[in-house]
Amino acid sequence: MAACIFCKIIKGEIPSMKLFESERTFAFLDIQPLSRGHSLIIPKHHGAKLHDIPDDQLHEILPVAKKIASAVGCEDYNILQNNGRIAHQVVDHVHFHMIPKPNEKEGLGIGWPAEALDKDKLNKLLEEIKSKM
Amino acid sequence: MAACIFCKIIKGEIPSMKLFESERTFAFLDIQPLSRGHSLIIPKHHGAKLHDIPDDQLHEILPVAKKIASAVGCEDYNILQNNGRIAHQVVDHVHFHMIPKPNEKEGLGIGWPAEALDKDKLNKLLEEIKSKM
Ligand SMILES: [Zn+2]
Ligand SMILES: [Zn+2]
Repeated sequence: MAACIFCKIIKGEIPSMKLFESERTFAFLDIQPLSRGHSLIIPKHHGAKLHDIPDDQLHEILPVAKKIASAVGCEDYNILQNNGRIAHQVVDHVHFHMIPKPNEKEGLGIGWPAEALDKDKLNKLLEEIKSKM
Repeated sequence: MAACIFCKIIKGEIPSMKLFESERTFAFLDIQPLSRGHSLIIPKHHGAKLHDIPDDQLHEILPVAKKIASAVGCEDYNILQNNGRIAHQVVDHVHFHMIPKPNEKEGLGIGWPAEALDKDKLNKLLEEIKSKM
């Protein structure tokens, strides 16, 4: 945690373009934006992945993302949170991107390699996941 | 709303592979998954876009996404919520994807057309957004 760049931003040890701060949540502009208004919303609680963050530290994240999207004035946008290098995570402190999508070129690019429907396979998986919840 | 496929799933008028249900939240397997365990977490409150959903209907979304990711047992995954056709939204009822990323081929594909840092432009934008929050 001592080396975490986002923990340093929260503490004010590294400057940021701060948009919002409360007891549990911090938000700032991404300095290498995919589009105008691209912002990051983070829990102050340090954790690398979503499943490392306690529930009560997560309640405010989406309301703050919403508030920023409305202030930016974007109608079309993506909310994205990446877990793991292979899933495009670069900084190991949970962060939610709010990425406006003004046109085809700017904003998040999405690849969608959907599988065909296999109901038997899915029903087996459903029971397996439910048994672990 | 009468024609909304997700409202019908919530009411049980259309069957779904349900993983979780509470007063405000519903979750089920995506039947055309990008990877094993691809799930959807939705607020029961109908609204097309994130900014249409009241804050208190959003608090439970991320804790439920977390719970499902842990039950699926995926270490690497993306949380994605799309607003608008251009941003890849297909169903007009807010939904959060939990998409495991087991390897390069399966799961979400991400395109990241980042802009170079332009601090003056960003500082102007920061003041503009903050004035609207
Ligand atoms: Zn940190
Ligand atoms: Zn609906």
